[in-house]
Amino acid sequence: MKLTRLLIAVFLIFSTFHLSAQQLKWTTVAPGVWKAVIGKPDAYNLLTASGAKPYVAGLAKMGSGNFPFLQGEIAATINDGKTYLRFPLNKEEQLYGFGLNFQTVHQRGRIMQLHVDHYGGRDDGRTHSPTPFYVSSKGYGVFINSSRYINVYAGSAARKDSKNPPVEKDRNTDKSWQAHPYSDAVEMLVPAAGVEMYVFAGPTTLDAVRRFNLFNGGGPLPPRWGLGFTQRVKSLYTSEEVIKEAQTFEEKGYPLDFIGLEPGWQSKSYPGTFEWDKSRYPQPASFVKQMADMGIRLNLWINPYFSKSASFYNALKPYTASHTVWVGEVPDFNIPQARKIFFGQLQKNQVNIGVSGYKIDEVDGNDHYLWPDVTTFPSKKSAEQMRQTYALLTMRYSLEMFHQQNRRTYGLVRANNAGGVSFPYVIYNDYYNHEDFITALINSGTAGVLWTPEVRASKTSEEWLRRFQTVIFSPMAMINAWASGTKPWSYPEVAEQVKELALLRMQMMPYWYSEFAKYHFQGTPPFRGMHLEQGFKPDVKKETVGSLEENPYALAVLKEIKDQYMAGEYLLVAPLFTGQKSRKIVLPKGKWFDFYTGEYAGNGEVLTVEPGLNKIPVYVKDGGIIPMIKARLHAPKLNEKVDLEIRVYGTKPSTYMLYDDDGETFNYEKGEYSFREIKVERNTEGLLTGTISEAQNKKPNTVGNVRWKFMMQQ
Amino acid sequence: MKLTRLLIAVFLIFSTFHLSAQQLKWTTVAPGVWKAVIGKPDAYNLLTASGAKPYVAGLAKMGSGNFPFLQGEIAATINDGKTYLRFPLNKEEQLYGFGLNFQTVHQRGRIMQLHVDHYGGRDDGRTHSPTPFYVSSKGYGVFINSSRYINVYAGSAARKDSKNPPVEKDRNTDKSWQAHPYSDAVEMLVPAAGVEMYVFAGPTTLDAVRRFNLFNGGGPLPPRWGLGFTQRVKSLYTSEEVIKEAQTFEEKGYPLDFIGLEPGWQSKSYPGTFEWDKSRYPQPASFVKQMADMGIRLNLWINPYFSKSASFYNALKPYTASHTVWVGEVPDFNIPQARKIFFGQLQKNQVNIGVSGYKIDEVDGNDHYLWPDVTTFPSKKSAEQMRQTYALLTMRYSLEMFHQQNRRTYGLVRANNAGGVSFPYVIYNDYYNHEDFITALINSGTAGVLWTPEVRASKTSEEWLRRFQTVIFSPMAMINAWASGTKPWSYPEVAEQVKELALLRMQMMPYWYSEFAKYHFQGTPPFRGMHLEQGFKPDVKKETVGSLEENPYALAVLKEIKDQYMAGEYLLVAPLFTGQKSRKIVLPKGKWFDFYTGEYAGNGEVLTVEPGLNKIPVYVKDGGIIPMIKARLHAPKLNEKVDLEIRVYGTKPSTYMLYDDDGETFNYEKGEYSFREIKVERNTEGLLTGTISEAQNKKPNTVGNVRWKFMMQQ
Repeated sequence: MKLTRLLIAVFLIFSTFHLSAQQLKWTTVAPGVWKAVIGKPDAYNLLTASGAKPYVAGLAKMGSGNFPFLQGEIAATINDGKTYLRFPLNKEEQLYGFGLNFQTVHQRGRIMQLHVDHYGGRDDGRTHSPTPFYVSSKGYGVFINSSRYINVYAGSAARKDSKNPPVEKDRNTDKSWQAHPYSDAVEMLVPAAGVEMYVFAGPTTLDAVRRFNLFNGGGPLPPRWGLGFTQRVKSLYTSEEVIKEAQTFEEKGYPLDFIGLEPGWQSKSYPGTFEWDKSRYPQPASFVKQMADMGIRLNLWINPYFSKSASFYNALKPYTASHTVWVGEVPDFNIPQARKIFFGQLQKNQVNIGVSGYKIDEVDGNDHYLWPDVTTFPSKKSAEQMRQTYALLTMRYSLEMFHQQNRRTYGLVRANNAGGVSFPYVIYNDYYNHEDFITALINSGTAGVLWTPEVRASKTSEEWLRRFQTVIFSPMAMINAWASGTKPWSYPEVAEQVKELALLRMQMMPYWYSEFAKYHFQGTPPFRGMHLEQGFKPDVKKETVGSLEENPYALAVLKEIKDQYMAGEYLLVAPLFTGQKSRKIVLPKGKWFDFYTGEYAGNGEVLTVEPGLNKIPVYVKDGGIIPMIKARLHAPKLNEKVDLEIRVYGTKPSTYMLYDDDGETFNYEKGEYSFREIKVERNTEGLLTGTISEAQNKKPNTVGNVRWKFMMQQ
Repeated sequence: MKLTRLLIAVFLIFSTFHLSAQQLKWTTVAPGVWKAVIGKPDAYNLLTASGAKPYVAGLAKMGSGNFPFLQGEIAATINDGKTYLRFPLNKEEQLYGFGLNFQTVHQRGRIMQLHVDHYGGRDDGRTHSPTPFYVSSKGYGVFINSSRYINVYAGSAARKDSKNPPVEKDRNTDKSWQAHPYSDAVEMLVPAAGVEMYVFAGPTTLDAVRRFNLFNGGGPLPPRWGLGFTQRVKSLYTSEEVIKEAQTFEEKGYPLDFIGLEPGWQSKSYPGTFEWDKSRYPQPASFVKQMADMGIRLNLWINPYFSKSASFYNALKPYTASHTVWVGEVPDFNIPQARKIFFGQLQKNQVNIGVSGYKIDEVDGNDHYLWPDVTTFPSKKSAEQMRQTYALLTMRYSLEMFHQQNRRTYGLVRANNAGGVSFPYVIYNDYYNHEDFITALINSGTAGVLWTPEVRASKTSEEWLRRFQTVIFSPMAMINAWASGTKPWSYPEVAEQVKELALLRMQMMPYWYSEFAKYHFQGTPPFRGMHLEQGFKPDVKKETVGSLEENPYALAVLKEIKDQYMAGEYLLVAPLFTGQKSRKIVLPKGKWFDFYTGEYAGNGEVLTVEPGLNKIPVYVKDGGIIPMIKARLHAPKLNEKVDLEIRVYGTKPSTYMLYDDDGETFNYEKGEYSFREIKVERNTEGLLTGTISEAQNKKPNTVGNVRWKFMMQQ
């Protein structure tokens, strides 16, 4: 009797892997965030790998929301050791997300396998951050918390039992026959016998994105200097050459906040020793200090694969993967001892003497460089799981070093994933298509990541300037000259324009800083697509072809806007690319004003502009308030007071929350910050006037004198 | 006590899935063929899906061979429900195979996921036949009998415990640093908790290929008419237009053996009804008969996805997949009842009235068209397993219809896999790069498949002629004009040259037929790469850069020959492509002679030739014997006696086995065939003379008078 019961129990344990059509139980885990579990999910997932914790206060502030699906509409099944998921779609829905895509914004109808990889020129799910998260134009989000390669059919597959099946047509004779039949669901295949999933409420699409970001801990808050200008130098530069480089920037009047050193700072690379090369950097500590005295921080290139010549080789060797990467051994950062040894070396050798951050290379792929999927790791995580999370681990534990010293960092990384939203790392890659770089910037806003459309080299001064115009309206204003050796002034015909742009980046620092604070505290991505903008969709609708009756897709095939984006609360940036003399700009509803002149530009219409080579079109929303400072070569220092010029655009009274803290430490985590209200009102004479609230008692206060600049003639 | 034992037993059952480093037991399953099993392989694999049975007599004739690996050199492990395989590599080895690649022949260093799909322009494992089989230049073969998506690292991954690890170099300063470190193993990941694998002995690489082919049942033996010329007509052609087309070929003197009808023969397509369209084909039976009377057979396009208008819709509906393809339901051919209904319709409606074969379309992919991986099938096979085997099932069961009628068929298919070697179907696709088509022809020889570099349309008459020159030296001489409506004479400037080529195809029929018989009885692929040719490698070696010491890869990076191939026992074909005026040809060791003139061409050297537009360079091995017939418009009929012209090339006495049977039925399976020995000897006067042996008693005899043509001046 006992035996039978036991056998049944054993049977049940194993038969859970053969369930079908399970009813999901959705539990509220935060206001407007629901979780469901099917089967036995892997204990190791994107949230556990990254250690992401919800920013509860931020979520609470957003309030609760309505669960966006009907009871039973979401289906989950386990079959053959894999989890099958289905989320319904309406005819009118468009989808965004599924990670850092480079060529598409609209994701409905697409098929992907979400797989951390370098971007190979196709939006097939292989990218630097294949975040398993999507949002709908209906205003909700879905996140699959799995570190597996997930197959996604984002409204591409048609089920025979569908309630909205596609209509049969005869291809022989019916010209309206379509190669892609209508599909009413997102379906996903997770190669694991169970998974954890989340749904995020709206009501707007941006709200769903914000909830996802906040649930992941909120965006990172870079130090002020991180939002300045950064230059990466050639790999074999010596400390003297680096100092000379910084001096040249100073002499020529180009801003510079941090310099990136490439593999040559190490005594060996590919695989690396993680030690300074004594011939190129004979006195690292004094070199770093000398740079700091010039106001320049240092960022060091690494990839985590270590050489037999590394001092910690023997100690770390037991905690490495079965396979090597570029002959270097691969530390398993899920093993505490491995982290202690590896990051201990970085801490002792670099962070302790003042190095400000890292560029973490080659934690993405491609397959020919990274470990193969047959690799095994001492922590028993599969190669697949490690591939999906290795960047998360490197960011998480490198950040810990800086956190311990109460110094913020802001670095670069080649990969990310869900769970990594809060890490102060910006993704870069080897791809170099300018148009696609902007599309990636748009998609970074729904992927929970930061992305820089970095400048390297250009064929023409036109290209150089056009690329520079976009990188200063991005999370990291960088020239990545490790191979080319280019400088901001390398193209003499446009050297002055480049300088002006770099200085504009510095002038706008209070705006960028406040916008990043919103990413952190409110979840709003500082750079994002137009589809997250209220008032955008209705206008584009005019451009759709045919009616809903003729084409059930009509809304879903809305023209994709891949070449203009929102930068912070107020700015619409519309880059031009090499060869372009003019371009169209789709303005959302509401009045928009020229960023440079303050002049009225339009309202919910399609503009055609011909801005000339020197200008990147930027528009400001009515009521836009842009806090700026004087042009300068380095970011304000810790707690440094700086005078503000507050630009006010348009005619609408409004408010702006200026974020303020010391600019460099993690004290904001203990409440050492304030949002100061900038208020623009209409006085009794009908003129706009502005006020700024005092810094809260005992909170950091970096605001000096305030000058107001009303951009519209009053 | 009992309970404990039971629990241990239960534990052991489930813990087999967590084994590590298992010792493999290799069992001889045929002479020179070994099998090993790890874990619990899927019962459904490529061999069970295809029903392939070894051609035992053929394998026995090859004799036994030596197991090509040392004890314990092959490693297999099961981890996380997946099987990890490792096969060692020597420094000198090159690898070939892994399916129908289009751009690469050398596979060492490559990474693939073997996945049935349309070819998307990259050799990444997604192709029409991603055959999990490779051969080594060392003379052995390896086959993984799995219907899963297998990840392959073909000498790309380096293990830290390797006995031949790559050497560490400092990228900073060492210019000999390599991006792709040396790897000493093929590693594979099979996403299943066990797998069945096979090793094939040499001693030559071709021997290993032959053993693989014979183990899969040997190659198909097409009917004689299958080796003639075939034209596919526009989709909406009517029976009258088809008859007219055949008449025009006859009048103009262009050969034609079968015509292919496209979707328009059906009353509806995409999804299909599998019934004749009454308006375009009012009297199918008499139409098919009328065509047969003209000597023309009919091949019908299908894809297996069926319409609600199909007469069998309700009967077949219970046996279909969860998802639709182009709104059509997907029959599960693993269900006997499904096969009976579906092929019963084809048999009754088409095969019984004389239709000679099918073009089975869209059983490959791409993902946007085929069922998604979340599809479920009533037979409980996963979508992945069905994707890897669906073409096998359609070929297997369509062939059964013809077998029952004792009529051979020869058709087209969009996909294949291991297990499908013996099916008389030729792969085609939508890709149209001429150079890559030739590389595919080379790779077809190690993929166990047939491939046609079909001609569709061309931008210029030069391209038209260049493409035509290659398709007549391929498994199927076809113009696929379903969209373009082109005819052989569509480019008037080269219409005569095309006619001559088509007639040459007909003249060479005894040679092609005998070479296919060798594919069937001996496993030798009729079209294959130079690397399978004895005496080829040593000559190319001269072209390698550096010594083995400088570059341990040296042999592995031998220049890849992607643009010349072997056609049958004796012919080396070296196509020219649009724009080419001259080309290099690498001759293997031994004397080679010009196919057209019989003149001596060279011996183990690199020729540069400028053949002019009208000629495709073809060379014949010393002692080459090419049996030919007079130019004619249709293949010989059942048992028709035809006069032979036997061309003899070079100066070396030799023999050729001419295959003979009735040309149309499966009676050869009952022994109704003979190989007749053509013998060329030197007589007492030192002159070459030829003899041909009599047909065996009561065996079919289709040889009429014999004329000898010694191509060298004697």
